Amino acid sequence: MFALDEVRLNLADVAAGARRRLDPVHWDFFAGGAGEERTVRANEEAFTRRWVVPRILRAVGERDLRISLLGSPVSMPVLIAPTAFHRLAHPEGEVATARAAAGAGTIMVISMAATRSVEEITAGGGVHWFQLYPQSDLGFTSSLVRRAEAAGCRALVVTVDSPVFGRRERDLRHGFVDLPPGLVCENMRDASGQLRDIEMDAGLDWRRISWLRGLTTLPILLKGVLHPADARLAVEHGVDGVLVSNHGGRQLDQVIATLDALPAIVEAVGGRLPVLVDGGIRRGTDVLVALALGATAVLVGRPVLWGLAAGGAAGVRHVLDLLRADLDRALALAGATRPGDLSADLVATVARA
Amino acid sequence: MFALDEVRLNLADVAAGARRRLDPVHWDFFAGGAGEERTVRANEEAFTRRWVVPRILRAVGERDLRISLLGSPVSMPVLIAPTAFHRLAHPEGEVATARAAAGAGTIMVISMAATRSVEEITAGGGVHWFQLYPQSDLGFTSSLVRRAEAAGCRALVVTVDSPVFGRRERDLRHGFVDLPPGLVCENMRDASGQLRDIEMDAGLDWRRISWLRGLTTLPILLKGVLHPADARLAVEHGVDGVLVSNHGGRQLDQVIATLDALPAIVEAVGGRLPVLVDGGIRRGTDVLVALALGATAVLVGRPVLWGLAAGGAAGVRHVLDLLRADLDRALALAGATRPGDLSADLVATVARA
Amino acid sequence: MFALDEVRLNLADVAAGARRRLDPVHWDFFAGGAGEERTVRANEEAFTRRWVVPRILRAVGERDLRISLLGSPVSMPVLIAPTAFHRLAHPEGEVATARAAAGAGTIMVISMAATRSVEEITAGGGVHWFQLYPQSDLGFTSSLVRRAEAAGCRALVVTVDSPVFGRRERDLRHGFVDLPPGLVCENMRDASGQLRDIEMDAGLDWRRISWLRGLTTLPILLKGVLHPADARLAVEHGVDGVLVSNHGGRQLDQVIATLDALPAIVEAVGGRLPVLVDGGIRRGTDVLVALALGATAVLVGRPVLWGLAAGGAAGVRHVLDLLRADLDRALALAGATRPGDLSADLVATVARA
Amino acid sequence: MFALDEVRLNLADVAAGARRRLDPVHWDFFAGGAGEERTVRANEEAFTRRWVVPRILRAVGERDLRISLLGSPVSMPVLIAPTAFHRLAHPEGEVATARAAAGAGTIMVISMAATRSVEEITAGGGVHWFQLYPQSDLGFTSSLVRRAEAAGCRALVVTVDSPVFGRRERDLRHGFVDLPPGLVCENMRDASGQLRDIEMDAGLDWRRISWLRGLTTLPILLKGVLHPADARLAVEHGVDGVLVSNHGGRQLDQVIATLDALPAIVEAVGGRLPVLVDGGIRRGTDVLVALALGATAVLVGRPVLWGLAAGGAAGVRHVLDLLRADLDRALALAGATRPGDLSADLVATVARA
Repeated sequence: MFALDEVRLNLADVAAGARRRLDPVHWDFFAGGAGEERTVRANEEAFTRRWVVPRILRAVGERDLRISLLGSPVSMPVLIAPTAFHRLAHPEGEVATARAAAGAGTIMVISMAATRSVEEITAGGGVHWFQLYPQSDLGFTSSLVRRAEAAGCRALVVTVDSPVFGRRERDLRHGFVDLPPGLVCENMRDASGQLRDIEMDAGLDWRRISWLRGLTTLPILLKGVLHPADARLAVEHGVDGVLVSNHGGRQLDQVIATLDALPAIVEAVGGRLPVLVDGGIRRGTDVLVALALGATAVLVGRPVLWGLAAGGAAGVRHVLDLLRADLDRALALAGATRPGDLSADLVATVARA
Repeated sequence: MFALDEVRLNLADVAAGARRRLDPVHWDFFAGGAGEERTVRANEEAFTRRWVVPRILRAVGERDLRISLLGSPVSMPVLIAPTAFHRLAHPEGEVATARAAAGAGTIMVISMAATRSVEEITAGGGVHWFQLYPQSDLGFTSSLVRRAEAAGCRALVVTVDSPVFGRRERDLRHGFVDLPPGLVCENMRDASGQLRDIEMDAGLDWRRISWLRGLTTLPILLKGVLHPADARLAVEHGVDGVLVSNHGGRQLDQVIATLDALPAIVEAVGGRLPVLVDGGIRRGTDVLVALALGATAVLVGRPVLWGLAAGGAAGVRHVLDLLRADLDRALALAGATRPGDLSADLVATVARA
Repeated sequence: MFALDEVRLNLADVAAGARRRLDPVHWDFFAGGAGEERTVRANEEAFTRRWVVPRILRAVGERDLRISLLGSPVSMPVLIAPTAFHRLAHPEGEVATARAAAGAGTIMVISMAATRSVEEITAGGGVHWFQLYPQSDLGFTSSLVRRAEAAGCRALVVTVDSPVFGRRERDLRHGFVDLPPGLVCENMRDASGQLRDIEMDAGLDWRRISWLRGLTTLPILLKGVLHPADARLAVEHGVDGVLVSNHGGRQLDQVIATLDALPAIVEAVGGRLPVLVDGGIRRGTDVLVALALGATAVLVGRPVLWGLAAGGAAGVRHVLDLLRADLDRALALAGATRPGDLSADLVATVARA
Repeated sequence: MFALDEVRLNLADVAAGARRRLDPVHWDFFAGGAGEERTVRANEEAFTRRWVVPRILRAVGERDLRISLLGSPVSMPVLIAPTAFHRLAHPEGEVATARAAAGAGTIMVISMAATRSVEEITAGGGVHWFQLYPQSDLGFTSSLVRRAEAAGCRALVVTVDSPVFGRRERDLRHGFVDLPPGLVCENMRDASGQLRDIEMDAGLDWRRISWLRGLTTLPILLKGVLHPADARLAVEHGVDGVLVSNHGGRQLDQVIATLDALPAIVEAVGGRLPVLVDGGIRRGTDVLVALALGATAVLVGRPVLWGLAAGGAAGVRHVLDLLRADLDRALALAGATRPGDLSADLVATVARA
């Protein structure tokens, strides 16, 4: 239950509430990352090096955070990133997350590693995208895509940063390998109801993206683009968007912070595709900075899990409402009324001593 | 009362004395800022990255700190920034502050959110400017300007960085919303004696500045200019000065430190207007650096409140005297005899390790 | 013995295990460096400033870490740096290290200051190079080279950064001067069986390198090249490789970190020789970054000693296996399948705040 | 007495020994600086940002640290900076310091604020320079110069960074104003034996330098040059050397670190005068870096006082011997045999994270 008497003014408060409620092993699963977790920290730290240079006297009384993304309206440029195993955080799991997302009018990207089925998650309405680890079994991959289509998902978010599994030392120290009894990856049941393991397919390549492109009419986004050459290849392969992501620092440590990678990706894409970014977004100004540097929208992962652990659907909704109010205030104070007003001259990079 | 037996060699000493005397909730109201208070810290930190490169052998025995600002003589290029609620710091409130300012020969910018009326504050003599949050009720705004004129204020300082109210988490945690019984914003009484709330008018725009320009012959300064494009617009709209300010980090966190914003503003203004700056000024070399980088004068906010809390008018005077002596010494040791001697070659930026 | 029940997920774990087992004086001998040990720290720290920008969708299922170095195949581009006195870490000393190296298929550079003889070390098979401090007694130097040749060493690694002995304050504080009874530098016995001290020959110059070049047909690498002008001289003097090294920070403190020196050396060499680097390699991404910046291979010193102290040959093998697995994973996650795929565009330098 | 059983491997050890022996008020007088002591720290910190890039194979067996400075031979490019009140550190005061300097073959710059007379100090032999605060009483200034000449001083070091006295908060907190009974500035006795206070003459200008130039044939160095324009003026006014100094951070806080100021001074002087530097020299590599960046020699101040407090003349000698040995080792390990071999390519600036 969400303890409404707790002070929860910002996402750090919500994180603290989540930590109090979660099994420490599960907290570490959500919080941790690969190696020494330098990239986990760098994602947040990158935002502290960019400073907002606000405009003034721009009549910002009428603000509108809405954007349209790949044909779907969104109430704000903050989406829910795909993250695994929501039932570790709350008994309702992804169904609670989806209810909050729908209530908040934003898009939830459903993880292939969800502990509720895509059909259960989408049943409550709202806009959903489906995150896919393409499996080497093309038939099973195809059936997953069909299942996501049938459940009403409106886009595929194809994870391309995981040819092998990242090595997360917290989990190794805890011996955290399997989900607790009763929890499974519900989307991994095949036609016969047998559960499959999620495969990280090291053979994944651009031909598989072309194959996916031919398989479905859903928009396809590539999740995990960090090198500008790959952003250009993404355009050439006809995908519909790129998501600048380092998997929350969970795959390879010492990988560049997403905000640091963003400008080169934006330049390489040259406006031909929407560029999304996740990693380290904790405040309204973080969203503002990412958008000013060219992102179309951002996604939040861990904060959603904090909200879910701290208060179920209400907790997730609180996280989304905090970010919305914070972004709204940041827009006004930077002299903007809508995401499209933001431009790179609103951001300065100044070394801290 | 001001405990004269306390050692108070620098502003940090005065702050410590203030903290001992103030209700912690009020200390936090004065000390705190928006969000994580990164900008609060950045304002001070920016001065630690600029190093003074002094000149020698320049016969600095006769020094003169006086400047003239918008027609008023000032004894030194250090003014008192507008800050709210001085009666939280001392029973005499802004009247004590004004007495110290007059005694020190500097300008006090009277806050619209003063807890003493502008008439009481100006009654003791000295030079005063009036800080204005333009209200959407033009009639009331007009009456405020007339009242400031009548009370003898010599300029309007129009705050333009506050279309909405900043979110200060310390105050939210304390539940600090209302002034204690007996304290009100005395300037917010309308003709009928009714108290109004101060409105942050999100609709404020350049046309309102033009309207104000037509309303009064007082010089108008814009407070909260950080973007060079806005500095150019300020020149075009016929204002008389700009104040580089981020509201002490109290409006939007992660906004650029004022010293980091100053050079681009100075360049944009190109000498057509005086450029003032506030935020993080704690030492004579801070004043020197700001002036060397092109500021005409600086304003101090929190230090004045520290002095007021620690010792009333005598405490404020002590703060001003410390800054004056420190600036005087810094000028001499940098080879200058007056503010106008300072130039950008006296300042080097060196990264700290 | 290697305590298999200890968790040892990374080299820091192995270091902790070593520290528990080692005499603190010997731990300090291995861990310490010259002066304030700034270079010791800088070697590791340099890797935290380079961020990996991975490529995606490159079908990385078939990876191959093997390289060929001066005619010898190596199973991965991670070699064992020469370090002194392995019997301080484990009774078997360098023989255990060599067994691990052979098992892992990598090259061990045998230290001239080994506490087992070169013949004992090479007896177990594998590929070995011999590290040489050229002695002013050319006859003895010559006999050392012949002995290394006869023992099957396949290259000479000539240390050129030690005209005098570095001053290591930890050792001075401990009074650590002599090896414990029973341990000697076994390679320093002359023809009559008399033990000689290792001389740091301050007169060493390029003519001696030419003399060595004429003395043996073994490939010669220079260990301790940091200045690009010296890298060019190395090419001109017909050596077969350069090793960018600052002796693990043990010779002169405040010397540049090896990773910071590497790019200029790579540029100066211009592909004419293999460029190796040691210093601060602790993770697979460290290897990846060094190779992306132009190194042909890296060497690890202290981690090998940690493994040796913590578990003898099995401990060294564990260290090598950790690095191999970590590099293999890093290659895959950066979109590469072999060392030769790595290029400088995979690395970005971003200041940390 | 110098406790020979104390470990004193480096200057930090000597400082610790001094601190144990000194009255805390006197320790603070020697250790402290102006304001927040940022420049005190910056002087040392600047050396941690410059990294040595050594040369190799240069036959460095025959090293020679000697230089010639303004006609006087010196055994190494490390001189003793003028510092006040040596009898606070040791009963023998400056006489002990001079004995150590003579023994070590280096130049002692005698402070005008010495607690032993210039005649006593020079009586023991060695090379001495005399530091002068020019007094507005030209007759007295003239008599001081004559007295220094008569005592055998070979140069005047004219302090030009002190038009007013720096504000040192440690001393103000301690109420440290006067020397203890029995200690006086012995050089401040006038012809009648009356003691005068040392005046900081704010009127000092280049004409006074010209007057001094006409007064004596001794070489004149200006101490406290930080701005390149002043270095050019120094050349034009016919002085014989400049000393890049910020008075050990004791005059104006936030002044640039001397090492950061050095390169622009060297460039401005263009080889026409020797350029000396003081501030933050604690290791042989500090000397090496300063020389590589163009300094002819360095001076050490606080370390000499530490040695004096810790062990009298023997302590000072130990400090000088440590620096000599450290510099000698650093030269060898950087591939140089004499100060003149050092060039700017041996130094790289790398940001630390």
